[in-house]
Amino acid sequence: MSVYWNERTRRLQPYVPGEQPKDRNFIKLNTNENPYPPSPKVIEALRKAVDNTLKLYPDPTCTELRETAAARFGVKAGQVFAGNGSDEILAFAFAAFFGKLTQEDKSGEEFLLFPDITYSFYPVYADLWDVPYKTIPVKEDFSIDVAPYLEMIHHGNSSGVIFPNPNAPTGIALPLDDFKKIATAAEERKRVLVVDEAYIAFCQKACGQGTCGSTIPYINDFPNLLVVRTLSKEASLAGLRSGLAFGSEELIEGLCRVRDSFNSYTMDRLALAGTVAALNDASYYDEINSRVIATRDRVSSGLKALRFKVLPSEANFLFAAPPEGSGKNGGELFAALRERGILVRHFNKPEIADFLRISMGTDEDMDVFLKACQEIILKQ
Amino acid sequence: MSVYWNERTRRLQPYVPGEQPKDRNFIKLNTNENPYPPSPKVIEALRKAVDNTLKLYPDPTCTELRETAAARFGVKAGQVFAGNGSDEILAFAFAAFFGKLTQEDKSGEEFLLFPDITYSFYPVYADLWDVPYKTIPVKEDFSIDVAPYLEMIHHGNSSGVIFPNPNAPTGIALPLDDFKKIATAAEERKRVLVVDEAYIAFCQKACGQGTCGSTIPYINDFPNLLVVRTLSKEASLAGLRSGLAFGSEELIEGLCRVRDSFNSYTMDRLALAGTVAALNDASYYDEINSRVIATRDRVSSGLKALRFKVLPSEANFLFAAPPEGSGKNGGELFAALRERGILVRHFNKPEIADFLRISMGTDEDMDVFLKACQEIILKQ
Repeated sequence: MSVYWNERTRRLQPYVPGEQPKDRNFIKLNTNENPYPPSPKVIEALRKAVDNTLKLYPDPTCTELRETAAARFGVKAGQVFAGNGSDEILAFAFAAFFGKLTQEDKSGEEFLLFPDITYSFYPVYADLWDVPYKTIPVKEDFSIDVAPYLEMIHHGNSSGVIFPNPNAPTGIALPLDDFKKIATAAEERKRVLVVDEAYIAFCQKACGQGTCGSTIPYINDFPNLLVVRTLSKEASLAGLRSGLAFGSEELIEGLCRVRDSFNSYTMDRLALAGTVAALNDASYYDEINSRVIATRDRVSSGLKALRFKVLPSEANFLFAAPPEGSGKNGGELFAALRERGILVRHFNKPEIADFLRISMGTDEDMDVFLKACQEIILKQ
Repeated sequence: MSVYWNERTRRLQPYVPGEQPKDRNFIKLNTNENPYPPSPKVIEALRKAVDNTLKLYPDPTCTELRETAAARFGVKAGQVFAGNGSDEILAFAFAAFFGKLTQEDKSGEEFLLFPDITYSFYPVYADLWDVPYKTIPVKEDFSIDVAPYLEMIHHGNSSGVIFPNPNAPTGIALPLDDFKKIATAAEERKRVLVVDEAYIAFCQKACGQGTCGSTIPYINDFPNLLVVRTLSKEASLAGLRSGLAFGSEELIEGLCRVRDSFNSYTMDRLALAGTVAALNDASYYDEINSRVIATRDRVSSGLKALRFKVLPSEANFLFAAPPEGSGKNGGELFAALRERGILVRHFNKPEIADFLRISMGTDEDMDVFLKACQEIILKQ
């Protein structure tokens, strides 16, 4: 604590991102990065964009990027927002739509709702922007429990709803029917629903055909729906910082108002050029992401064969707990893997302390991981 | 207004950046960009950084960049913060240090202080973060009036102070003696002083030798001093989004707490690499910035010869009003220049409506500008 910090800074409990080891010899399965490189067309576009125009500010409206994203996803450019990774867009969304809704608001009676097991940045954003929130317990199988959301929204106790789909760190996708129930209830009360689709590209069931999938096609049905995407995982561009949001023009304008009260140019010229190139090379990314999905399903089977408890993931990671009676809990397995040069993520939260979140690496990396798990567990 | 916007979003009056014309035929003197290209070493470093490691998150601690900046400016790495342009760093500083200081704070009795004629983003940040503020009128010659700041601070009516040095859009630098008076008073009350040095590289008088200059050497004397820099202008990198802040380790930690509650990775891998290369090529930038200074002084003389009122600028722009009796006010001259393909900036604020802010272009561009001014004025 410092005498120079204001009340906000003193009370904040910042988010702690996964470790970025300086030692490159680690097999890095801890921050959900894509194991495959960005599209060669992205690399080419970035090299081309490195020129003397860097002396000029970027386009603050991100027009070319928004038009490209609109064409790719079948929406209007005015329904697209671009930002410095989905984390920044989520921060803007918390600032724009949740918390105190009107001047007359009796503060403390309406809560932002999100699952108790979810992206651990949500409570941090809420504290940053003074957003009262309530967490809703997930079901025993770790899936999202829809009924309590509907009840809270119907009774007017909600300033909005946010959840990742698939959820993190469980990897479990919400059926579209359940999404529609929450979106409908929230729209009736004119509350914003943010669906955080950081991992949706790894959800196998195509939207509208299966039971799960992206909710972008529903932004015209639900003017209260904001869908947030990131290029970090699905386009192998965690190092470029690029995210997108899709929603009604009034939601996008709300995000712009906050962005333009914070930093008019959050995406640099290179991030803009690289994102356009990535959006234009869907076939490359469909191919590498299919490989990630295949690896995930293979590793899931491998862990189950070792009697791990593995949640049914539709993301580019698995959430798995070592077998009961193996003598290793989540923290111990984490440490044993780290000793062998394999980094995964362990969360110090009682309900999920048994579990590890394992990002999918290449097939070779995952073979090393599976072998290490086998050795550690059988050693007992 | 939208039914989905919360109270904050409804009341915000976002900052409006200078126009970024899609038509490249304009002579662009409206957003204070550097007319010379980035260092060739920066271009080379950026091209080299475009590789497959973009699939990985950047270093959230920006260690290499902070160590490079520390060596360049003679401070410790723990006294350096890096961000997505100085605008983002300013946004974090408003969130971290100003407004409600303690839980017991009687809100509305302590005000952030800044000049009435200054960077127009300051009141926007203040509204975003609920920071009550008071503006202090500049003197008749547009210089900062120190006495009212000292008085407000002494009487305990200030939650902090911020000003640009040189000030914008006037270009006038504050003497270091005056800076020390404000810093000393603020330190006695444990209030943070932010000095926004976006344009200090164009201040001719070297720090400690002349009467003006960078305040970075004073961060060890004043633990309440945060000095904010941007690479946009001084390093010709407006398109890369890179800024730095210097201050005591507790101030830097305060900024980190807010940043890590907002977006852990605001600088992408390319911005990190380009900024390191720019900091390592001081001789290139000293040379181009000396040219900008020479051009500024020449254009100032040229405008004075046309009987313009020109403020004594230590920045990379001039703030000048057309001669009285020329029949053109600031807005009309702005429009007449725009018609001739020359973009400058005009602010719709009564006290400065007569003035134009003219960024320094190349010598050729400025010759075209001076000729246009002459023709427009003499036509009357």
